[in-house]
Amino acid sequence: MTRERLYLYDTTLRDGQQTQGVQFSVAEKRQIAQALDAMGVDYIEGGWPGANPTDSDFFESRPQTRAAFTAFGMTKRAGRSAENDDVLAAVLNAGTSAVCLVGKTHDFHVTTALGITLEENLESIGASVAHCAAKGRESLFDAEHFFDGYKSNPGYAIACLKAAADAGARWIVLCDTNGGTLPAEVGRITAEVIAAGIPGDRLGIHCHDDTGNAVAASLAAVDAGARQIQGTLNGLGERCGNANLTSLIPTLILKEPYRSRFDTGVSENALLGLTKASRLLDDILNRVPLRSAPYVGASAFAHKAGLHASAILKDPSTYEHIDPAAVGNSRVIPMSNQAGQSNLRARLSAAGIEVAPKDPALARILDVVKTREDQGYSYDGAQASFELLARRELDILPRYFEVKRYRVTVERRKNKYDRMITLSEAVVVVKIGGAKMLSVSESMDETGSDRGPVNALAKALAKDLGPYQACIDDMRLVDFKVRITQGGTEAVTRVIIDSEDSAGRRWSTVGVSPNIVDASFEALLDAITWKLVRDGAEAA
Amino acid sequence: MTRERLYLYDTTLRDGQQTQGVQFSVAEKRQIAQALDAMGVDYIEGGWPGANPTDSDFFESRPQTRAAFTAFGMTKRAGRSAENDDVLAAVLNAGTSAVCLVGKTHDFHVTTALGITLEENLESIGASVAHCAAKGRESLFDAEHFFDGYKSNPGYAIACLKAAADAGARWIVLCDTNGGTLPAEVGRITAEVIAAGIPGDRLGIHCHDDTGNAVAASLAAVDAGARQIQGTLNGLGERCGNANLTSLIPTLILKEPYRSRFDTGVSENALLGLTKASRLLDDILNRVPLRSAPYVGASAFAHKAGLHASAILKDPSTYEHIDPAAVGNSRVIPMSNQAGQSNLRARLSAAGIEVAPKDPALARILDVVKTREDQGYSYDGAQASFELLARRELDILPRYFEVKRYRVTVERRKNKYDRMITLSEAVVVVKIGGAKMLSVSESMDETGSDRGPVNALAKALAKDLGPYQACIDDMRLVDFKVRITQGGTEAVTRVIIDSEDSAGRRWSTVGVSPNIVDASFEALLDAITWKLVRDGAEAA
Repeated sequence: MTRERLYLYDTTLRDGQQTQGVQFSVAEKRQIAQALDAMGVDYIEGGWPGANPTDSDFFESRPQTRAAFTAFGMTKRAGRSAENDDVLAAVLNAGTSAVCLVGKTHDFHVTTALGITLEENLESIGASVAHCAAKGRESLFDAEHFFDGYKSNPGYAIACLKAAADAGARWIVLCDTNGGTLPAEVGRITAEVIAAGIPGDRLGIHCHDDTGNAVAASLAAVDAGARQIQGTLNGLGERCGNANLTSLIPTLILKEPYRSRFDTGVSENALLGLTKASRLLDDILNRVPLRSAPYVGASAFAHKAGLHASAILKDPSTYEHIDPAAVGNSRVIPMSNQAGQSNLRARLSAAGIEVAPKDPALARILDVVKTREDQGYSYDGAQASFELLARRELDILPRYFEVKRYRVTVERRKNKYDRMITLSEAVVVVKIGGAKMLSVSESMDETGSDRGPVNALAKALAKDLGPYQACIDDMRLVDFKVRITQGGTEAVTRVIIDSEDSAGRRWSTVGVSPNIVDASFEALLDAITWKLVRDGAEAA
Repeated sequence: MTRERLYLYDTTLRDGQQTQGVQFSVAEKRQIAQALDAMGVDYIEGGWPGANPTDSDFFESRPQTRAAFTAFGMTKRAGRSAENDDVLAAVLNAGTSAVCLVGKTHDFHVTTALGITLEENLESIGASVAHCAAKGRESLFDAEHFFDGYKSNPGYAIACLKAAADAGARWIVLCDTNGGTLPAEVGRITAEVIAAGIPGDRLGIHCHDDTGNAVAASLAAVDAGARQIQGTLNGLGERCGNANLTSLIPTLILKEPYRSRFDTGVSENALLGLTKASRLLDDILNRVPLRSAPYVGASAFAHKAGLHASAILKDPSTYEHIDPAAVGNSRVIPMSNQAGQSNLRARLSAAGIEVAPKDPALARILDVVKTREDQGYSYDGAQASFELLARRELDILPRYFEVKRYRVTVERRKNKYDRMITLSEAVVVVKIGGAKMLSVSESMDETGSDRGPVNALAKALAKDLGPYQACIDDMRLVDFKVRITQGGTEAVTRVIIDSEDSAGRRWSTVGVSPNIVDASFEALLDAITWKLVRDGAEAA
């Protein structure tokens, strides 16, 4: 069988941003675009320039990518020329190589939502696409509500697609906008569209997950002949989300019949970064990653049932449909100490700590990590705290100083000008060798605003560490992440702090407590201790 | 077309319990079984009696249900009679009307995992099923790894099914145990099984979501002729979970071709309880409900895009594939900086606030929303705070009370037993009408652990609100989310608090400040105020 090219179109930055509660900053959009480009998607839809200031700013500062950057917009309004449509002009002004225009194909929407004639809508589609094509842009037409439109009035829906195709659209994308079309129907209608004269290698599919079938419906369209899939990382998107590319990509690359039949822009090597890319998006959204997510979830290859786990030990293929390593994920089995220990030694070695195989400290460290992860700690992102934990178990962590106590106060009250103000103050008592030092700090910034209890505590802690002060003076906290790791107010708070020094080193530490100030304190303490270890400070 | 009966088999209590971190108590199992019975599933698989003490206890105290209670087990071991197999005996001793036995059908697993001959396995299947049938039980055979087995050795896999069918199994269930078979293949193989002589009305389907296709694969099997679907509430289950009945049920009841073709045990009236049943399971598991869940998610009918929202106002069917009320869910038109005035009016109307089109307050509210969103507020997740903001602009927010000042202290020090402890304490001063009230609270939970400054502040604030106390006494904080909205320690903290009351209402409020305690305070204050507004409390 000759292999065919299948194209992947990502719309995380546009349709994904329609998710309730999601609003990416320009910097976040850049970060996501770079991850998508590394993955190997063919198109990155960046947003709707003109409709949203952030989107316009992003197009101006978008990263260089191998993927075709795409600006999204809509077909021109009826009654004006494409040249004079300001919305269309803003889209073209973004200067992307590809442009995707959404337009109506459902007769009911044309007359009800747009309030124009069916003929006017056809003219808008044709003229808009032709205008983009004349400007030398690769043009895509998103056929909104296509499946419902086709069921209501197949002749008109097809006429809309033909208007776009005849005007030079490279891709005609069949959109199931309200997510209500089931896979079998998506497959049947896609085949009928091809039979009606739109070639499959110009057809894309855009599904939503309102019935939990967006991935399957996308595959059904490909089975019927479509050759472009639109979707988002982690299935982000309005309502129940878009087709999940994080699920689709490994299926297309690893599983039959797709593996033998199609080439995509995603290499098996890039696929190794899939789990990481998925977690990156969750990090940016400050979401707890879905444990049960296909392929990339923390539980996706976790074998709990006793029968399964023992079979897995004999042969992983007994209960796994793919090798978890292929997507950068890993198997979780009720403690296979052998595998755990070799991983651990590799990780310690990366921190410059060499431990002999079968050293009993290895099992101890694994136990401590497991216990603490049950409590809410996470050492994947907090390598510096992990290193300190290991050094403690290996008894190679010098004792520098001890925090005897601290007290943080946050007060909100009126000041003498009768203005409501907030004031935070921290007192820290540290013992170094035989000496006791008291430090106190507020948390005012340059503008006189209060930055809160964690800031006050960090300042007080770093104010006077006696012999170690010179070593920590060039430390700077660069990021502070808070996550509630269990539901409810009685939840546990995990704080991850990223620090940096003048040598350009950057390290992450973690603290966990029901009390957010205490969790922050633990992470701050680890951050300072790691810096002292790495700079070779002597024990007090 | 004559309508056919389609059967639903729930395995939340058995396969669902294989989920990492899930272990139901007997009381929880009873609660879930009752919810499933009210929904109208045909079979409730309660667990594996004998394999798990909780499961045995549960069968002894199981509730009376209309659904057939089913005990799960495995086919007898080779080399002993069904009568003398203790595992099988424990299953039968549970005394359920139906019994489901899992057995091997994949030649590789028979020889590798069981280590017996193919012939011995056939004998185990036949004798075990015949034994259950002879005891008068409705018998089901779960054909483990059937799809992989069929691909490896179709003749043997079919022979296993026939052994069960000939021995009197009411249902032969095709299991895609490792979740790796895609929908098209599930459909094709199911049709081939029927062609090989197992009637479709004796065939069930059991899928897992490892490729994100469990729902679609279940539908594909039904399309091919299978007449029983096995799945779990919310798709609970090992690895990526089982086929999600919460997604499948409304599709089968509400959507074509299933709606016209099949009867199930679920009435349209019972379907109104679907969202509640889904939340009940999350409550029991202490999980935050997935906002994007098909049909039942809080965002499943949330329309953020301005274009969509304005069309929804004209006619909900423009962007909704079903009426959200049919599954006990509701439409949400969230606020965001993409929204226009029509979106805003709809949202206000949903909150019981009618504003005339073009009322100048609409533009003012949009301005305030935009300004505050630039500061880090987010109103599409915090509708209660949005409503208060609008009421303030519209001058229809009663003045209930004023917080004159507060002070929160977090102290970490050694207690008298020389153990390091953390203590949080909050003092709040509130003015209601002419009266001033001082409240103080610690933040100890039942176990004597400190829960931190926000908890202390919430307790102090809710301790004495004078005339409003009765109204807020049934409030409960159910979730607390923290997000740093700009990088660096000098970042702004956004806190979102979800609250609930005894009427089952749930609302979200937001606070923003560089100081996390102050941001939390703002969200807490909004939560209380919204409750007073909604309960019609009088201004002080």
